[in-house]
Amino acid sequence: MTGIVITGGAGFLGSRLARELLAAGPLAVAGGEPRPLRRLALVDQAPVPPDLAGHERVTAIEGDLGDLLAAGAEVLAGADVIFHLAAAVSGECEADFDLGMRANLRATELLLAACRALGTDPVVVYSSSLAVFGGSGDHPLPDVVEDHTLPNPQSSYGVQKFIGEQLLADYTRKGFLRGRAVRLPTVSVRPGRPNAAASGFLSGIIREPLAGQRAVCPVGAQTAAAIGSPARATAGLLCAATSSAQAWGGRSAVTLPALTVTVADMLAALERAAGPAARSLIDWVPDPEVARLVASWPARIRADRAARLGLAPDPDFGSVIRQYLAETR
Amino acid sequence: MTGIVITGGAGFLGSRLARELLAAGPLAVAGGEPRPLRRLALVDQAPVPPDLAGHERVTAIEGDLGDLLAAGAEVLAGADVIFHLAAAVSGECEADFDLGMRANLRATELLLAACRALGTDPVVVYSSSLAVFGGSGDHPLPDVVEDHTLPNPQSSYGVQKFIGEQLLADYTRKGFLRGRAVRLPTVSVRPGRPNAAASGFLSGIIREPLAGQRAVCPVGAQTAAAIGSPARATAGLLCAATSSAQAWGGRSAVTLPALTVTVADMLAALERAAGPAARSLIDWVPDPEVARLVASWPARIRADRAARLGLAPDPDFGSVIRQYLAETR
Repeated sequence: MTGIVITGGAGFLGSRLARELLAAGPLAVAGGEPRPLRRLALVDQAPVPPDLAGHERVTAIEGDLGDLLAAGAEVLAGADVIFHLAAAVSGECEADFDLGMRANLRATELLLAACRALGTDPVVVYSSSLAVFGGSGDHPLPDVVEDHTLPNPQSSYGVQKFIGEQLLADYTRKGFLRGRAVRLPTVSVRPGRPNAAASGFLSGIIREPLAGQRAVCPVGAQTAAAIGSPARATAGLLCAATSSAQAWGGRSAVTLPALTVTVADMLAALERAAGPAARSLIDWVPDPEVARLVASWPARIRADRAARLGLAPDPDFGSVIRQYLAETR
Repeated sequence: MTGIVITGGAGFLGSRLARELLAAGPLAVAGGEPRPLRRLALVDQAPVPPDLAGHERVTAIEGDLGDLLAAGAEVLAGADVIFHLAAAVSGECEADFDLGMRANLRATELLLAACRALGTDPVVVYSSSLAVFGGSGDHPLPDVVEDHTLPNPQSSYGVQKFIGEQLLADYTRKGFLRGRAVRLPTVSVRPGRPNAAASGFLSGIIREPLAGQRAVCPVGAQTAAAIGSPARATAGLLCAATSSAQAWGGRSAVTLPALTVTVADMLAALERAAGPAARSLIDWVPDPEVARLVASWPARIRADRAARLGLAPDPDFGSVIRQYLAETR
C-alpha cells in the first residue's frame, strides 16, 4: 500500500494530480512493484475541492506548509511519495520578495528536512520551472534550451526554484531521499480563476473569451512562449514518480517538453475554435514587468531526457483548446 | 571613511585580507572615490590573531555567525563592504550535513537579509569555490571550465556555495545590495595547521616537509588540481570589492584564474626548493573519499572575466613555494 502527499494539493495542478492518482490503478513507485494507493494527503493553505475532501482515501491538511512543518506537524506521516507543488507564483515573488523566500525557499528547506527525517528514502517529486532559465547581459539566453543549459534565473521565483533543485539533488546524493525535479513549462489552458503568475495571461486570453468574457493581453502578439497542457504537466509529474532510477537518468532536473507558440498562434487557434467574436474579446494593455519576466523565459525547448522517458509536447495549440473544452464543459 | 566587515575574519584568508586592507591606502569601493578605512570588524567563532585584535581600527566580534545574526546582533553596523568568507569546509560538510546547511546555507541567508536591512546598498563580496563545478553520470565535467560552464556540484559544500551565489545574484538584481561572487581555487600553500577541507593536503604536502615533518598524501601523484596562492586569492577578493559595476560585468560569479598542477609537479617543485630529503617526508595513504571529492573538482580553468579584470594565475608552483617561504620565515 502506498501513501502519497501532495503539497499545494488544493491548487489546480495538485487537485488534478490527486484525481488522476485516485482514478489510476496501483502505482509503481520508482519502477517498483505496483501497489494500491492507501492514503492521499493534500496539504494546502486553501480548502481542498469538495470532491477530493469527501473522498475516503483523502486526508486534507489545511495550513501554510512552512508553518505546519516549522511547528512539527506530521504532514508526511507514512508517505512513500511526496509531490511538492506548493509555491508562491512568479508575479507574487517579484512583488513580495519575503513571501517568495518564505513560501518557496524556506518551506522547501523544511520539507526536505522532514522527508529526510522519515528515514524511509521517500520519492520526492519537485515541481521546478522553465523560469530557472533566463538571459542577462553577461550571459544571453540561447535560442534553444537543452537539458544542460546553464540556468540563469532573472526572477526571484526562478532563483528559488533553482535552489530547490540543488537542495533536492544533494539530499538525493546523500541518500536521504530519492529526488526527481521536473521543470514545468507554463501550463495553459489553466482552468479556474486568474492567479498572480506573470504567465497567467497565457491561460486567461483563451479561458476568458471562451466564457464570453474580456481578457487582457499584457504582451505583444509576437511574444513566444513554451507551454504545456494540464494533462502533459501531470503526465510529467507521474512519470517522475514512477520511473526507475536508471530510466530517470540522474540527479539533475528533467525539463519537460513544451509546445512553442506565439500569442498570435494562440489567438488564431482560439478563433478557429470559437469564432472571431471570441478573439475580439482581447484587450491589449502592455505591462512592462510582465513582458520582462515572460521575455526572460525560454520559448524553445529541446527536452532530450524527457523524450527518452516517453514524454512529448502537445502537438498544437488547437488540441490544447479542445482538451480544455472537453474537460470544462 | 569606509567600514568593512570580514566574516571568517580570524581565519587564514580573512586575517590575511584584514592585514592587507589595514596596510593599504584609501579603498575605492566599487570603483568610487577612494576613502580611508575607518573600522574593520572581524567576525569569527575563533579568536582573532593578536596583531589584529590589538589594532586600533579593528573590532573583533567572536561567535557563530548564524547565531549572532539570528540573535539580532549588529555585526554589520556601518559596513560599506562585507567580505563573507566564513564557511564550514568541504570535508566537514560531507561528514556533517547539518553543520554545512547551518554554517554555509542558513548563515548566508541570514547575512544577506542583514545586509539588505542596512538599507545602504553595501558591496558584498562572497567567497564561492571551484567546488560548484563537478561531473556526474548525467553530466560529465568538461576538460576546461569556463565562466559559463554549468555548475554541477558533487559535494554538499559545493551545493551550498552555489546556492549562495544564486541568492547573492537575486539580492543584487533586486537592488538590496551589490553582490560580487568570486570562485576561489584551492588555496595553496596555506600556512598554519591542517583543517578539514578535502583539499587540505594540497597545502600539507608542501608545508609539513618544509618544516621537517611528515605529511600524508591521500591521492595519486598524477592527480591534477587548480590552485592559487594566498596572495592571488586576496587579490581576487579585493578586485571584487573595488571594481566598478561595469568592469565587474554582471551578477554571475567570477571564476578566479588558477594554476593547474599535478601532485607530482608540486613535489618536484618541493624537491627543487628544499631538496630530496623534504620530498621523502611524504606518506602515500590513499583516502577514497578525499580522492572522490578532489577528482570531482575541475583542474583546468579558462577565466576570461577574471583576465579582463587584470587577474592572473600564479606563473608556476616554484613561485608559490618561494612566496610561502618568504612570508613564513
